[in-house]
Amino acid sequence: MSNNIPYKIYLDENELPKQWYNVRADMEKKPSPLVNPASGKPMTLDELSQVFCRELAAQELNDTDAYIDIPEEIINFYKMYRPSPLVRAYYLEKALGTPAKIYYKFEGNNTSGSHKLNSAIAQAYYAKKQGLKGVTTETGAGQWGTALSMACSYFDLDCKVYMVKCSYEQKPFRREVMRTYGANVTPSPSDTTEVGRKILAKFPDTNGSLGCAISEAVEAAVSTEGYRYVLGSVLSQVLLHQSIIGMETMTACDKYGIKPDVIIGCAGGGSNLGGLISPFMGRKLRGEADYQFIAVEPASCPSLTRGVYAYDFCDTGAICPLQKMYTLGSNFMPSPSHAGGLRYHGMSGIVSELYDQGLIEAKSVEQTSVFEAATKFARIEGTLPAPESSHAIKAAIDEALRCKETGEEKTILFGLTGTGYFDMYAYQQYNDGTMSDYIPTDEEIKNSIDTLPNIK
Amino acid sequence: MSNNIPYKIYLDENELPKQWYNVRADMEKKPSPLVNPASGKPMTLDELSQVFCRELAAQELNDTDAYIDIPEEIINFYKMYRPSPLVRAYYLEKALGTPAKIYYKFEGNNTSGSHKLNSAIAQAYYAKKQGLKGVTTETGAGQWGTALSMACSYFDLDCKVYMVKCSYEQKPFRREVMRTYGANVTPSPSDTTEVGRKILAKFPDTNGSLGCAISEAVEAAVSTEGYRYVLGSVLSQVLLHQSIIGMETMTACDKYGIKPDVIIGCAGGGSNLGGLISPFMGRKLRGEADYQFIAVEPASCPSLTRGVYAYDFCDTGAICPLQKMYTLGSNFMPSPSHAGGLRYHGMSGIVSELYDQGLIEAKSVEQTSVFEAATKFARIEGTLPAPESSHAIKAAIDEALRCKETGEEKTILFGLTGTGYFDMYAYQQYNDGTMSDYIPTDEEIKNSIDTLPNIK
Repeated sequence: MSNNIPYKIYLDENELPKQWYNVRADMEKKPSPLVNPASGKPMTLDELSQVFCRELAAQELNDTDAYIDIPEEIINFYKMYRPSPLVRAYYLEKALGTPAKIYYKFEGNNTSGSHKLNSAIAQAYYAKKQGLKGVTTETGAGQWGTALSMACSYFDLDCKVYMVKCSYEQKPFRREVMRTYGANVTPSPSDTTEVGRKILAKFPDTNGSLGCAISEAVEAAVSTEGYRYVLGSVLSQVLLHQSIIGMETMTACDKYGIKPDVIIGCAGGGSNLGGLISPFMGRKLRGEADYQFIAVEPASCPSLTRGVYAYDFCDTGAICPLQKMYTLGSNFMPSPSHAGGLRYHGMSGIVSELYDQGLIEAKSVEQTSVFEAATKFARIEGTLPAPESSHAIKAAIDEALRCKETGEEKTILFGLTGTGYFDMYAYQQYNDGTMSDYIPTDEEIKNSIDTLPNIK
Repeated sequence: MSNNIPYKIYLDENELPKQWYNVRADMEKKPSPLVNPASGKPMTLDELSQVFCRELAAQELNDTDAYIDIPEEIINFYKMYRPSPLVRAYYLEKALGTPAKIYYKFEGNNTSGSHKLNSAIAQAYYAKKQGLKGVTTETGAGQWGTALSMACSYFDLDCKVYMVKCSYEQKPFRREVMRTYGANVTPSPSDTTEVGRKILAKFPDTNGSLGCAISEAVEAAVSTEGYRYVLGSVLSQVLLHQSIIGMETMTACDKYGIKPDVIIGCAGGGSNLGGLISPFMGRKLRGEADYQFIAVEPASCPSLTRGVYAYDFCDTGAICPLQKMYTLGSNFMPSPSHAGGLRYHGMSGIVSELYDQGLIEAKSVEQTSVFEAATKFARIEGTLPAPESSHAIKAAIDEALRCKETGEEKTILFGLTGTGYFDMYAYQQYNDGTMSDYIPTDEEIKNSIDTLPNIK
């Protein structure tokens, strides 16, 4: 192993960041505010606090404080599985024969299997602090629901999860992990909510979608005393919590003299990408350094590369605040052939704004090529990656092979958000050769985008 | 966090042990030799080399060299997932209210999900070095098969796995991980081998057993040119490779001034227990320190606590060398209600001999109490443990609660061999309240033991 850089860089426990970084503070042009669908005006703290815990609502609105202290109770929980390793992909570099140096920040070494736990524990903590009885949420691929179940179990909070129906059926074991941590899991759409019943009446055979599960979870929260809704991605508060990923990565890079040229993350709602790049973006915004940022999304759900930047509903039921974001329209449902997560119709407001300003690039990749990269990575680097994370792997490999052609010795950093241990149904499709790709037609996207609300 | 001991102790990469420790070298009375069932005489190197790779056969017979260098290629692979963390169970201690200090060595942070990879990569390496085309093996709970698939993929070796039928059916996703790493997986008993066909003819409805799968794998190896058989536990070579667990643990303990009083490991074939305790046992044998060692086995498959110490077949088909070990008889089949691994009828010859000399204690625990401990541990310490590992958790919790009663401030160390992510079918049974316990009757055990071969 060259350069005296170990295969895995583990920071010491006392190097765990004590603050989250809020990239909005360093953005000259901020993300647009959340808007109340009834009044058409920006959501106030009081309005947001009907849906979210008050302190989380405050974080959602805070676009001025660059650093926010992480409460000690959350740091104690982080110590159970953080700092997470920054891995030098020596084996992958060698197998590709690339002059590029490849690093990945690996967030999968915890039972939830992904980075989602970083925000779940924060949201559960603030809910507990506010004296709530429980929280509701949705989960798609299941990573967020699992993470929230673990976090709620730790703080002894009720946890009610609406799980996108196709995932519920394809991933019974994900569901069982949540149950083991004491959560109540319902397939969505369900007949337990008004919005669920409406959607079922209209689309009785639907496989469900994240937007629809969000609607059910929000309804369940606002109609139950002592409950609030929590969300695993998209929101600015989530990107704030996830900045722990980037903060640790930057600390490790600085400690070992690693200077990334390209930083790559998969992007569904944007929580991982936003968390990983935030502190690096801060340096770029402050003119201290420059980086190329690449968001990688599925060709079957291409909000950045084929969506529009406009106010839209965050959920199918149109009961959430409106957010200005890159979106395919809240009625957009990814093809049933789409496996895994990254199936949300929109994108984090922060990531959307950074992308709109040209500070982030985006590309889309097709899922069979993603699973090809995933399998290659598993065999070479030893870790079987989540389908979501494998979008970043695919882009990192492409970039490394480009460097091989040009001879560039770039340093590539990507986020390996999680493991694929509960995604073997999708791997089985790939192994059996029955997995297919699907690219929505322009007309499909146009039809969905045509339903956007009329807010400027 | 007290004592300046971090939650997780990660050794640096350069502290990774460079040698395995062979505890037999320090044993005054050695384990009895493997015996050729045809001649009744100790197996020679040449005879063993018909079944195993030659270098592994040599390791099997070597009971004099205390330290054996780990080849650099294996160390490079170890660096992908080792050193593994030694975790201080601060949260568990607090939840139990015990004055005891609890540590666990966690081997689950790799895609195989357990410690099995430590020996898999060694066995694959020696097979490759010998120029073999491939290897065959059996797997029960699936951890060993997964580990071997990963190791074979790394060295580009064919890998043929006979998977105990009930596991094959309960764990389709385990199978899929093996396929992703390129392995060929067959449910056992199968009609692909003579011994499999015989067993199927006699017990058409059998769920399979490890002993039976071993017979099939051995037959497939010896009847195919360029193949050898490899085994994930029981053998002395496996305990040698697994000593990496104990070596790292001892290095970490010495570095931080941790002095374990009690060392606990789950015991099926003995690979984890033997690997974890070996270097500590070495100190005890050399009179340098004293420890209490506890082997924990399932009440449904109690080879140490209710078996006899005698020569027996390692497999149901009676085609393997005979080993002197604690055994329930090679026909013993654990009740279908038994979930997870630790279902082997015998025990490592090294562990058996140490137990017979009174250097190790043993206890058995029932599976519902094991899953109760597993669920508690998952919720408190964050990691969802493998059912096998949870036997050690159960015993560690019991010991910590005993310390609470007596006020003893003992230091308890146990092996957390792996994660339970592919064992959710068993967790589901526990969550649903449909899991039952089974303790074999004296007559069942006697009937099985009566079939032992007559070798002294």
